[in-house]
Amino acid sequence: MKTSLVPALAVLAHWSQLSLAQDYPFTEEQKQNANRTLSVGYVVYHGYTILDVFGPLQFLADLSWPFSIELSVIAKETGAIHSRPPAHHGPDGMPMDMSHMIDAQIVATHTFVTAPPLDILIVTGGIGDLTLQEQNDTSVEEFIASRFPTTRHVLSVCSGAGFLARAGVLEGLRATATKGSWAHVTRHGKNVTWVPSARWVHDGKVWTSSGVSAGMDMMVAFLRHVYGDPVVNTSVNNVEYAPHVDPSWDPFSVVHKVPGANMSMAMKELVGPLEVYP
Amino acid sequence: MKTSLVPALAVLAHWSQLSLAQDYPFTEEQKQNANRTLSVGYVVYHGYTILDVFGPLQFLADLSWPFSIELSVIAKETGAIHSRPPAHHGPDGMPMDMSHMIDAQIVATHTFVTAPPLDILIVTGGIGDLTLQEQNDTSVEEFIASRFPTTRHVLSVCSGAGFLARAGVLEGLRATATKGSWAHVTRHGKNVTWVPSARWVHDGKVWTSSGVSAGMDMMVAFLRHVYGDPVVNTSVNNVEYAPHVDPSWDPFSVVHKVPGANMSMAMKELVGPLEVYP
Repeated sequence: MKTSLVPALAVLAHWSQLSLAQDYPFTEEQKQNANRTLSVGYVVYHGYTILDVFGPLQFLADLSWPFSIELSVIAKETGAIHSRPPAHHGPDGMPMDMSHMIDAQIVATHTFVTAPPLDILIVTGGIGDLTLQEQNDTSVEEFIASRFPTTRHVLSVCSGAGFLARAGVLEGLRATATKGSWAHVTRHGKNVTWVPSARWVHDGKVWTSSGVSAGMDMMVAFLRHVYGDPVVNTSVNNVEYAPHVDPSWDPFSVVHKVPGANMSMAMKELVGPLEVYP
Repeated sequence: MKTSLVPALAVLAHWSQLSLAQDYPFTEEQKQNANRTLSVGYVVYHGYTILDVFGPLQFLADLSWPFSIELSVIAKETGAIHSRPPAHHGPDGMPMDMSHMIDAQIVATHTFVTAPPLDILIVTGGIGDLTLQEQNDTSVEEFIASRFPTTRHVLSVCSGAGFLARAGVLEGLRATATKGSWAHVTRHGKNVTWVPSARWVHDGKVWTSSGVSAGMDMMVAFLRHVYGDPVVNTSVNNVEYAPHVDPSWDPFSVVHKVPGANMSMAMKELVGPLEVYP
């Protein structure tokens, strides 16, 4: 055990007491997860979408106070990875220059070769996937395919599901993706059941979310699955975030006119803060 | 005009056509903002909160496609600024070690001395404010006070309002802040009307939001104020984000038992996607 983890575990003991105080029915896996280190890897590339990464990361980072979570940011090469999209062609085939846009850097700590063993693999979306496809760069897909068998949970946000489909790991599964680029993503994969109206879909060890901000709702649901509700809900309320907790909530499938979308769905739905466990 | 802005303005013309097509009543200021460069500065420090920065930044970055927006990340020193909180003392006076937590770096491009003229100044929150106060480091407050007179809009997220209060720029104004650390923040300032139940407050040229994720809702409202609804709403729907559009929506003031909170407020409220302008 690293010395730096000792304070984490001391805090964890405090939170665990809080949780146990109300006899919450933690599963055996949740109890185990609370007392082990989870290795989380984010896959990024130039032209990643900012909130796809940092939205879910807010909750992971907060939970890394009471729990032991280690983060690796994984890309083709280490160093600064830019959100500003590289040159690519738009849906109409015309060259797109986004070089004037605001940029947010994230530092890749590992390459696809040096990445450590992972419990949780998160593939983020972004316009940069267009550039990679134009360049026939399949390094992301190859990394996913190679790690899928040994990773306990695989998550994608937004167009990140396209990488999973091209890697072949969605075969036989239900999945969703961004509604703003639905046709672009769902043309990949052979035997994938794409769910047109879903904030997120959980099937087997794969979690796929709809576009950008949907990654936050998926992450909240995922963390409740991994650690149980009590500590996670308290953390989410500290973020003052009211997550969409119904995975079928998806008015954006209607907004973006996704074929097969549940058009009877009300455009406004109830949401609110999660239950507090005092 | 920079060469790199030409594509932005070409795209802008397209978006403007879209907008003008439905006779949306843009204000004169909104029309001017659509055709000028806005200089935006984020103030950060070690121990900033991840989503305080990158949540609002997602919307700013998206809007930097059709509009011309220049971003400066401003701190005491340039280079990597860490979200992982430095050593500090907790509310009970006990030393807090968070060195085991997940870290997200943001690169400061300017110092308080080298920062360019700003149209928009955004002060983010974070536990790092405790360390700065313990060290009697008032560099953030001094920067805010020096820039306030010449900045058109000043925004804070979460505990960032504490810096504004200590800088003296909230005197005579209504403001809000994180509900999770309400007492900690609102003890600052002499003649500030702190609003206990508010997702965000807009008074004069100052916008203050509640905790963490509230910064995204404030930014959506702010951008609609600056650029008008049509382009902003389309962008927000592409993020698949359903913002809270009522600034008085604040169930977290109830969750966190803020004195004076509107306890009659329903814990669950209606939210949904913004209106689309086809």
